[in-house]
Amino acid sequence: MRAVTIKDGELHVVERPDPEPGSGEVLVRVRGAGLNGADMLQRRGRYPPPPGVPADIPGLELAGQVIALGPGAARFSVGDRVMGIVAGGGQAELATVHERVLMPVPERLSWAEAGGLPEVFTTAHDALFTQAELEPGERLLVHGGAGGVGTAGIQLGRAIGARVIATVRNEGLRDQVAALGAEVIAPEGFGARGPFDVILELVGAPSLGENVGALATCGRIIVIGIAGGAKGELNLAALMAVRGAIHSSTLRPRPLEEKALTARALERSVLPLFDAGALEVPIAATHSLDEVEAAYERFGAGGKLGKIVLVPEG
Amino acid sequence: MRAVTIKDGELHVVERPDPEPGSGEVLVRVRGAGLNGADMLQRRGRYPPPPGVPADIPGLELAGQVIALGPGAARFSVGDRVMGIVAGGGQAELATVHERVLMPVPERLSWAEAGGLPEVFTTAHDALFTQAELEPGERLLVHGGAGGVGTAGIQLGRAIGARVIATVRNEGLRDQVAALGAEVIAPEGFGARGPFDVILELVGAPSLGENVGALATCGRIIVIGIAGGAKGELNLAALMAVRGAIHSSTLRPRPLEEKALTARALERSVLPLFDAGALEVPIAATHSLDEVEAAYERFGAGGKLGKIVLVPEG
Repeated sequence: MRAVTIKDGELHVVERPDPEPGSGEVLVRVRGAGLNGADMLQRRGRYPPPPGVPADIPGLELAGQVIALGPGAARFSVGDRVMGIVAGGGQAELATVHERVLMPVPERLSWAEAGGLPEVFTTAHDALFTQAELEPGERLLVHGGAGGVGTAGIQLGRAIGARVIATVRNEGLRDQVAALGAEVIAPEGFGARGPFDVILELVGAPSLGENVGALATCGRIIVIGIAGGAKGELNLAALMAVRGAIHSSTLRPRPLEEKALTARALERSVLPLFDAGALEVPIAATHSLDEVEAAYERFGAGGKLGKIVLVPEG
Repeated sequence: MRAVTIKDGELHVVERPDPEPGSGEVLVRVRGAGLNGADMLQRRGRYPPPPGVPADIPGLELAGQVIALGPGAARFSVGDRVMGIVAGGGQAELATVHERVLMPVPERLSWAEAGGLPEVFTTAHDALFTQAELEPGERLLVHGGAGGVGTAGIQLGRAIGARVIATVRNEGLRDQVAALGAEVIAPEGFGARGPFDVILELVGAPSLGENVGALATCGRIIVIGIAGGAKGELNLAALMAVRGAIHSSTLRPRPLEEKALTARALERSVLPLFDAGALEVPIAATHSLDEVEAAYERFGAGGKLGKIVLVPEG
């Protein structure tokens, strides 16, 4: 098979032996593999993959066809359309994935959409519902609404009846984000629009103080992204005054059983909303494996709305 | 009735009209009323009582005998021994309390013990179990183990089978705290004893960074006290690395229904442990109402283990 690899920060497409599915795994012919911020970090050597995954093949999500079953694998049949998060190795023509972390692809989704769905919707769903326990009618603030997790979080919040406000720095993207179901505002002075029951923080520490000050009683901040900065001053008196909480999370280092639980949660609560046409996966661009350099560049450049997805032709 | 009052930071014992129990309330002849840190803050004008409570009579907890029932009150009979948290007004000969926030006093407890139980055990139980979801076998660190909430938290942790470590600054108190069921250490360098699943923070911000660094995967910090400082630097990257959470809480501003829920939780999970002799309320000293100045001084001076409780004689 052909696969994207990272060597000394350079991207290459190389020939590798076809992987073989182990016990409980399926072999997937990858048809869509979304790019994520972690791929950019990994390229810069700052997000080493956990043990047990291809060390030099990036890719944290994929969609494709089942083409072989490992011993004991029984959830899917050859030919099924599947998708899921992986700890690495998604950006290749073939990948082996444990069947428990795979989900069926909703019929109406294209390969590109399915390949760009798992990471951001799993992250947003886990953050908003498993961590922050967002409830209908609550006020949700999404910091960084134009990013992948942001667009997923806005749609999920709207779908359950939360009132969603999103900050978007890039003025050119605000209308597109608003179309997903949020009231869109500039980041400056967002606190005056509070109080918020849940704040989904996808930017980082710069807003920490203002976030705490904008929390409603028993409000929750859930920190998922810190590209904008990791360290900030926390005023515990202000947090206690509203009995607030700060949660944080990452998906990648989780063990198999926890990733499988997130897949079950999506199957139960999110995929039916795709079937019903209530959610979408905005796609900014698709690229072949050979265009991987351009795909990464486009991702890093920002200023886009929607996922960048590799679509191997093999 | 006679009652403690605060005027311009001065404590007085004054004569006031007997209160009358309203709908759903009972009139309690107070036999024990513990002192708490919030009383000291209120005396300094820094913790104004919420609306609906006697503005100048301090006291956040009490135990005593039911001597009259308001309209509709049916949970208790005249003569019953009851105790509970109140939003203020506990440090008096009489107090009216809604029956839903009262609990029966375990038979083996003295009035002083019962009067010093509600605030610290409700706070510790709510923090450890409702907020931080402490589980058997987990490692619990209690910062400030010699304080009232600390001694309650240590005992509750031990009672459910958590492994408890407590920091105690005052060397002279360490043996007494250890006798409650914790391994006691000095605050300096506590992080090296981690990782901890739950950290009960009763001191404040000074340990914030080291706390985050000492969290186990999915560890929780619960901040209840900040006398040692309110502001500290939070490293979100370090928090995310362990998928950690920071909770905070205060009891006093909660509405009636939430306080009633904490009373039901204590009745269910904590009072049976008192009946069984598995928990105790350490008492440092008791004082009559007339000795209130001495009682507050003793509380403020620190260096004690156990509660200071007012025991009105009237």
